[in-house]
Amino acid sequence: MIYFDNSATTKPFQEVIDSFVKVSSEYYANPSSLHGFGGQAEKLLSQARAQAAKLLSVKNSEIIFTSGGTEGNNLAVKGTASFYKNRGNHLITTEIEHPSVREPFKQLENRGFDVTYIPVDANGRVNAGDIERAIRPDTILVSVMHVNNEVGTIQPIKEIGELLQNYPKIIFHVDHVQGMGKVPLPLYQNHIDLCTISAHKIHGLKGMGILYIREGVQLEPILSGGNQEGKLRSGTENVAGAVSMAKALRLITEKMEHKKEHLSNISKTLRNRLKNLDGVVVNTPDQIAAPHILNISIPHMKSEVVVHALEDKDIYVSTTSACSSKQKTVSSTLTAMGVSKEIAGSAIRLSLSYDNTLEEVEKVIAAIAETVAALRKVMK
Amino acid sequence: MIYFDNSATTKPFQEVIDSFVKVSSEYYANPSSLHGFGGQAEKLLSQARAQAAKLLSVKNSEIIFTSGGTEGNNLAVKGTASFYKNRGNHLITTEIEHPSVREPFKQLENRGFDVTYIPVDANGRVNAGDIERAIRPDTILVSVMHVNNEVGTIQPIKEIGELLQNYPKIIFHVDHVQGMGKVPLPLYQNHIDLCTISAHKIHGLKGMGILYIREGVQLEPILSGGNQEGKLRSGTENVAGAVSMAKALRLITEKMEHKKEHLSNISKTLRNRLKNLDGVVVNTPDQIAAPHILNISIPHMKSEVVVHALEDKDIYVSTTSACSSKQKTVSSTLTAMGVSKEIAGSAIRLSLSYDNTLEEVEKVIAAIAETVAALRKVMK
Ligand SMILES: Cc1ncc(COP(=O)(O)O)c(C=O)c1O
Ligand SMILES: Cc1ncc(COP(=O)(O)O)c(C=O)c1O
Repeated sequence: MIYFDNSATTKPFQEVIDSFVKVSSEYYANPSSLHGFGGQAEKLLSQARAQAAKLLSVKNSEIIFTSGGTEGNNLAVKGTASFYKNRGNHLITTEIEHPSVREPFKQLENRGFDVTYIPVDANGRVNAGDIERAIRPDTILVSVMHVNNEVGTIQPIKEIGELLQNYPKIIFHVDHVQGMGKVPLPLYQNHIDLCTISAHKIHGLKGMGILYIREGVQLEPILSGGNQEGKLRSGTENVAGAVSMAKALRLITEKMEHKKEHLSNISKTLRNRLKNLDGVVVNTPDQIAAPHILNISIPHMKSEVVVHALEDKDIYVSTTSACSSKQKTVSSTLTAMGVSKEIAGSAIRLSLSYDNTLEEVEKVIAAIAETVAALRKVMK
Repeated sequence: MIYFDNSATTKPFQEVIDSFVKVSSEYYANPSSLHGFGGQAEKLLSQARAQAAKLLSVKNSEIIFTSGGTEGNNLAVKGTASFYKNRGNHLITTEIEHPSVREPFKQLENRGFDVTYIPVDANGRVNAGDIERAIRPDTILVSVMHVNNEVGTIQPIKEIGELLQNYPKIIFHVDHVQGMGKVPLPLYQNHIDLCTISAHKIHGLKGMGILYIREGVQLEPILSGGNQEGKLRSGTENVAGAVSMAKALRLITEKMEHKKEHLSNISKTLRNRLKNLDGVVVNTPDQIAAPHILNISIPHMKSEVVVHALEDKDIYVSTTSACSSKQKTVSSTLTAMGVSKEIAGSAIRLSLSYDNTLEEVEKVIAAIAETVAALRKVMK
């Protein structure tokens, strides 16, 4: 099997599963229990928090564990809007956010908030100046993703973070789910207030995530109750999940250090060879994209058809994002980039991990070439 | 180790962990991916849903997987209030709900909803008539827990469900987190619209739960995004979690069938022997309580002191509920029952599983007797 669908989800690292099992079997107590058995669980939880904080170069108290990227994004967006609603009613985001950011904004619009959706250029990139021009005296939140999940474009987070320094009352949220472990994003230096991470995109387990919340930033919780996670995320803590998430974070950070060049190389090979293949259009921009995502179109060939043709060769890829693939909607990012219906309707996403090999890349290129050739024949 | 803190959390069944590991390692694809590998994950997810539905005697489409009891309760309470707010502004609950129900109601009060908190009698039981008398033309939700987590009292869900038949526009939510697998609760027969279950209280894994949503009942999602789980709970599905949750549900249902009497016997022994122990007050009512929870007080002896004294004998119990135990608040249920400060401040909760033994019960009784005797000595 050649798995090139790592932006949909990744294979959990064995060590991640092992640590989950160990904690679940041996340290299953409730960390809120007063006795020492609960204390052990609590200790593991705070060690996991400390490890995650260290890897992200932030304070322990700035890390909260969530059930995943979707929860992190919902909490960041709705939690900010609800908490700071007396400060202002205006929110800014982009046209290319993941549904777990876009939909919370839609819900907030229904609740009376005013949302500006900033467009992107032909490369799928938002312009920091456009964001600044959209700012109003009543703006309370700017939410921009780091790496786009459909085409891989890296957004100008640093520029946006810097310009927002002039607007100290605006909270800055970054959806870093696709960038984590692939494109470094120093949180303090980029003046980020809230940052979402998901475990299962970095070879962790599904159902776990982290929301970084800069000290001083306040949120109205969306899951209230027993006041766990600094009162911002109630619910009996998934200690095994947190420990395994910290482990995934450590391992992906190591991979990023040691296998950065490998990923970059196989990614370039994939891009350059496919770019030169007759009948293939590359949608992912050069230079300003993450190394693991390549979005291409084979015009006149529906995305689903290509996905299944490649599947017949034991190669697994996506029709743009996983969550919209079954809903048969065209990619919202490609649409925002202004590509034609033809290109959008024939787009597929190849997404790599550090463990993919050059050999696999060669096989995928050959398989795509064959698929294009077969199509040509049929159409002649 | 004698673990009598099963209402705080339980030891996961080995089979639960095994199934989690198998699915996480072998079927890690995103169930929303269009290819067959995603299809396999999707199939496992729908099998888990079907199995859970069957065990709860409801339709597959009425089961959604959540990240736990807290999320289920938040979604049920806030989701109903937000969705039906145009129908009315009044909500009814009790004074003894778990914080994951109570706090959402507090948040809704801040958002302008009007909430009536029904008191309980000296047994910790709400009166169905009181609920009916609180109903107004603008009432849209009644939320009552099944088994109270602090003292174990069973609430009159059947009566409430029946009386609500006369008010078809009111949604009926039941927090069944403590009752599941211990006190049967037929969902259809009791006319329940929404029912919350948590995996880790039934030897499943933390971070998983189920919300039953009766066909026709609508909710505004609190986690929006990719439209998973019937659009009511977005986020990449935790397939391994769902499979392991269905397994926990099956195993606890079997235990309830085969070890019901065993649990009832050891529970009665515990209660009767402690009741007759000089210096011990039993707070859990007779007859109308779940078999696994026994709340007692040792007047003049602070809860924490007893918890730690028992811990020295390798026995693990709680000071009432786990989530409030570190916040040093007294039990809200005991307070609502009208017990004295002395009794509330010296309360401890013993909570059993089907796997506890008579021998363990004997040891715990002896340990409590010793602890009381030691105290007597000090105080004389
Ligand atoms: C950019 C982005 N944000 C958020 C999410 C949601 O994360 P999760 O699947 O953990 O809910 C995803 C993936 O689904 C994503 O690609
Ligand atoms: C009655 C009751 N409801 C809800 C919950 C919350 O469930 P969870 O710990 O899965 O968030 C608990 C336990 O903490 C409980 O005892």
